[in-house]
Amino acid sequence: MKSYRKELWLEVPTRRAFINLTPQVEECLQQSGIKEGLCLVNAMHITASVFINDDESGLHHDYEVWLEKLAPHAPVDQYQHNGYEDNADAHMKRQVMGREVVVAVTDGKLDFGTWEQIFYGEFDGRRRKRVLVKIIGE
Amino acid sequence: MKSYRKELWLEVPTRRAFINLTPQVEECLQQSGIKEGLCLVNAMHITASVFINDDESGLHHDYEVWLEKLAPHAPVDQYQHNGYEDNADAHMKRQVMGREVVVAVTDGKLDFGTWEQIFYGEFDGRRRKRVLVKIIGE
Amino acid sequence: MKSYRKELWLEVPTRRAFINLTPQVEECLQQSGIKEGLCLVNAMHITASVFINDDESGLHHDYEVWLEKLAPHAPVDQYQHNGYEDNADAHMKRQVMGREVVVAVTDGKLDFGTWEQIFYGEFDGRRRKRVLVKIIGE
Repeated sequence: MKSYRKELWLEVPTRRAFINLTPQVEECLQQSGIKEGLCLVNAMHITASVFINDDESGLHHDYEVWLEKLAPHAPVDQYQHNGYEDNADAHMKRQVMGREVVVAVTDGKLDFGTWEQIFYGEFDGRRRKRVLVKIIGE
Repeated sequence: MKSYRKELWLEVPTRRAFINLTPQVEECLQQSGIKEGLCLVNAMHITASVFINDDESGLHHDYEVWLEKLAPHAPVDQYQHNGYEDNADAHMKRQVMGREVVVAVTDGKLDFGTWEQIFYGEFDGRRRKRVLVKIIGE
Repeated sequence: MKSYRKELWLEVPTRRAFINLTPQVEECLQQSGIKEGLCLVNAMHITASVFINDDESGLHHDYEVWLEKLAPHAPVDQYQHNGYEDNADAHMKRQVMGREVVVAVTDGKLDFGTWEQIFYGEFDGRRRKRVLVKIIGE
């Protein structure tokens, strides 16, 4: 069994954003030399997500509006977590969108349906944060 | 390390439905000959889910009502994504229910609690769609 | 390839609670002797979650309030599932928080960001329930 590990660093200049990580994860898979296995991609921070969906700006706008409705940022004092911080909503948005994805590796490629793309969902940005790529297989 | 891959094809005649995939995934596991490892089951489409929960029709009705409340289908023009499509809500429902499950394989079986069953959650059906089963182990 | 399996048993005296499982999962990893691989931790029950977030009591209070708003327990007869049971809301809360986490194992350790901790989320407690830890690798 082979294994591969890489941290991807991101610094999003806004509080919230969606960033397509697919090219970087594909590059990791190339570097790993793994042909058959599983690829885990996870946020290493608890106010961010990694998820798979469509690379379509209208949808990303809709996600932003929808998540803000499900878990509003303001007023920040509605959350007990926000004593010294203001990011309780980010911990909730991250649960809706998820921490991680596990992707099949087949014949040296991410085994994706037509429209599947891997995104980093930032909900408390404006600082350097990490995503972990771990691949195991042969 | 062994690996196994299979696509399960589904065509749901309605917009939304929940389909129990457990027997088909068990059959995949049999075919794979893998006794110890991990089994990934994921939707290959971004308007569908794979999740684990109860095979109980009342609960499935409740999920339908609940997801429609969290991310309503209509009016379709409330979503920017719906310029040429009408499925923005399906992209949201899929995030709540999840894209994939990873199931332990122990002694040649899906290592499940008593009531765990694998479901395909369709949120934009009436066309052929795929689920990927990937198993790695020994 | 090595594999390791353990069931963790929990009995939460209240209906809902969040329990930090990280020390127990680290102990499993030690016992497994696995240095590189993947660690799956999943609820074996469909009214409970395993998720990764912050070990902060204010946040846990906020999660409780938030999940109760997204999927209220009462009135119990709003759910068809609640013919003989009263836990339909628990099946929903579990979907928001997730069934499982997959954690990278690197150099014999859970490969975590600074604040990542593994939690059991109980939404229908007051009875014995199980969490599965399955580790594969080398």
